[in-house]
Amino acid sequence: MADLHSDLEAETTLAGQWFDHLRRRSKSRLGVTRASYGEGEQMAHDLMQGIGQTLGLEKRIDAAGNLYLTLPGQDRSLPAIMTGSHLDSVPEGGNYDGAAGVVAGMAMLVRWRRAGRQPKQDITVMGVRAEELSWFPAPYIGSRAAFGLLEPEALDSCRRPDTGRTLAEHMTEAGFEPDRIRAREPQLDPRNIRCFFELHIEQGPVLVQRALPVGIVTGIRGNLRYRDCHVVGRYGHAGAEPREARQDAVMAGVEFVSRLEASWLAHERAGKDLVCTVGRFHTDTEVHTMTKIPGELWFSLDIRSEDNDVLLALDRELRALAREIGERRGVTIDLGDFTNARPGPIDKDHRARLERLAGALGIPSLSMASGAGHDCAVFANKGIPSAMIFIRNEHGSHNPDEAMDLADFALGLKLLVAAVEEIDVA
Amino acid sequence: MADLHSDLEAETTLAGQWFDHLRRRSKSRLGVTRASYGEGEQMAHDLMQGIGQTLGLEKRIDAAGNLYLTLPGQDRSLPAIMTGSHLDSVPEGGNYDGAAGVVAGMAMLVRWRRAGRQPKQDITVMGVRAEELSWFPAPYIGSRAAFGLLEPEALDSCRRPDTGRTLAEHMTEAGFEPDRIRAREPQLDPRNIRCFFELHIEQGPVLVQRALPVGIVTGIRGNLRYRDCHVVGRYGHAGAEPREARQDAVMAGVEFVSRLEASWLAHERAGKDLVCTVGRFHTDTEVHTMTKIPGELWFSLDIRSEDNDVLLALDRELRALAREIGERRGVTIDLGDFTNARPGPIDKDHRARLERLAGALGIPSLSMASGAGHDCAVFANKGIPSAMIFIRNEHGSHNPDEAMDLADFALGLKLLVAAVEEIDVA
Repeated sequence: MADLHSDLEAETTLAGQWFDHLRRRSKSRLGVTRASYGEGEQMAHDLMQGIGQTLGLEKRIDAAGNLYLTLPGQDRSLPAIMTGSHLDSVPEGGNYDGAAGVVAGMAMLVRWRRAGRQPKQDITVMGVRAEELSWFPAPYIGSRAAFGLLEPEALDSCRRPDTGRTLAEHMTEAGFEPDRIRAREPQLDPRNIRCFFELHIEQGPVLVQRALPVGIVTGIRGNLRYRDCHVVGRYGHAGAEPREARQDAVMAGVEFVSRLEASWLAHERAGKDLVCTVGRFHTDTEVHTMTKIPGELWFSLDIRSEDNDVLLALDRELRALAREIGERRGVTIDLGDFTNARPGPIDKDHRARLERLAGALGIPSLSMASGAGHDCAVFANKGIPSAMIFIRNEHGSHNPDEAMDLADFALGLKLLVAAVEEIDVA
Repeated sequence: MADLHSDLEAETTLAGQWFDHLRRRSKSRLGVTRASYGEGEQMAHDLMQGIGQTLGLEKRIDAAGNLYLTLPGQDRSLPAIMTGSHLDSVPEGGNYDGAAGVVAGMAMLVRWRRAGRQPKQDITVMGVRAEELSWFPAPYIGSRAAFGLLEPEALDSCRRPDTGRTLAEHMTEAGFEPDRIRAREPQLDPRNIRCFFELHIEQGPVLVQRALPVGIVTGIRGNLRYRDCHVVGRYGHAGAEPREARQDAVMAGVEFVSRLEASWLAHERAGKDLVCTVGRFHTDTEVHTMTKIPGELWFSLDIRSEDNDVLLALDRELRALAREIGERRGVTIDLGDFTNARPGPIDKDHRARLERLAGALGIPSLSMASGAGHDCAVFANKGIPSAMIFIRNEHGSHNPDEAMDLADFALGLKLLVAAVEEIDVA
């Protein structure tokens, strides 16, 4: 019997049809829109359920509305191989962010069925609910709910901007059971999961720039975030105040960010994974003017790394820097509240397996960090050996221009199928 | 006969009464408000005219409404000694910005009259119209109009924000002749002016910090202004874009400003007069967010120096810097339109005279640049030997907390009286 991965043409064609269906049915003004617990997301779940029915897969929907489609294994008591991703999108987003991972899982199960083979253990494809932050401002709602990890307050405090209704209200309306999620009742037991694979489009430009179709993720970056940093100095006359007398909020903020960048470069030279973004940086648009020394400044910090030690080291540096610059320049630099989301550790063996198989199968690939967060991080942080495959994608994600080539998808699918087959045999 | 400057108690008391009158009659919600070509300014002109009448001074009002009160000299054909300042204020400003210079001039003429002395040449006190930019956005309207220097278009394009009416309309309404100003008809002939002295409160904190009552101005800073600098990069995913792929507008702007500050420090170390202000510096408040690499940034530059060569050298540096940083970081830094207002050169001899007299009379003083612009710069740039005396002032100017001590004013007045007396004798 031929290896499953060596003949995936039919499955690739099917996947292309499923993508077309998804796009057609969730087309909005500029791109596609599949709101968390909304129509577009449900449409995608319906499509997957239909495919599952055709394949005769076992279907389960948990209290949070996550969908599990399972190809039963020879020994149902063994922990399952899982794969999947989310089926929602940002408003006016692209067709592949999330969906590609579920479509890949379903295409893989088609291949197993077509070969007439039964895996040793269950293989489950998961359609995760509510991953995109645009709808409800809490990370990984579906996958965290599945492990009983969603903070109960998120159910009532998160409201969808387009409806004004809460997460709990939307869950109930869609036919699910928010009270069981509120009670933190686990919907999945990590002990029953052998490994988790997530295939996802790359959201940055790296694979496009390197002209490589597939990425093998080395780690899912965690983050350190200061949403509202605030510098308070003193407004003054632009011409009449000598330098030493100034308490210039912009000059202080500029030095802070400039030294943050220098520290970023130093970490990079030391071989550490790190990216830093100051997305907001602004004087008071009501008050600022060319001829006034700026007395106030606000900015945000989003700092990510695969290595939480790097984040914590940089955090200590930044706090010291804020104090030092503030004292020297006669301003206060208040970094404000911060959050630290731990990186999602990728399983070394699975990563090595993917790298080895890509080499053996002639799939050009790059080992790279995932800068964005993914449901996979939730599985990884529950101690489940997890790995991710990235597919090259033009124009980034979260916008209508997102563009994945089906030929690239086919290579990622091939790698996923090969890895799962190898694990099954092992 | 005693020196005029040695006995100014009566004049200081009078000056205090005039200041009280001005404050009482132009008190507004928080401070004082004397709009250019408005009620408050006219009230101040009326007060000065009343004093002039009492003293039997010659009165002239020019086509722009500037007031000239003259103590006739022995030889009317000699060029006059002039002093004065403006009588308008910013909205909700302080009582002394501008008025102090006119009050000092009038107090000086009281002293000449009380001594029964006639100067060799005319001594003229000028009450300048419309110096504050808050009312009509054109610099030095009164003093430039006096020399036929006001751009005719300013008469119709500048509108007072509180009335919506043009400068020409306000001039006409107040009884003046904007058509003569439009025709650039000079109201003053530089050949008839021997020198110009302006006494003014200091608008920065220098004298307060140095605990000195009087400043002797070394130069009136000119400026180099870029109102709307614009950095264009590319928005991107804060986690997924590696450093080399980013076109981060904030990081580029931060480097630009940081290197501007480094250059400022270098000029300072080289003994050059320079102050730099980035009053506005902001990402797009409609679009920016913590998790997006910022693709656009706007900022302003206000750079001042006594020495126009320093401004022009820095300008060349900044243009090169914008190009270099832009190319290296894959963004464009467009500095946009700029204006260069030439510094107002202070007459070396008059400055030396003021320094010498301050020493001889035991008036604690500091030689310092004027960071703000003053009408004096217009006289200086017309080739009239000009000088300025600063009076210590708390809390800066252009706000209701502006606070000049009458004892400090008395020392500045003493210096002005001594200098004019010395020039008269010379």
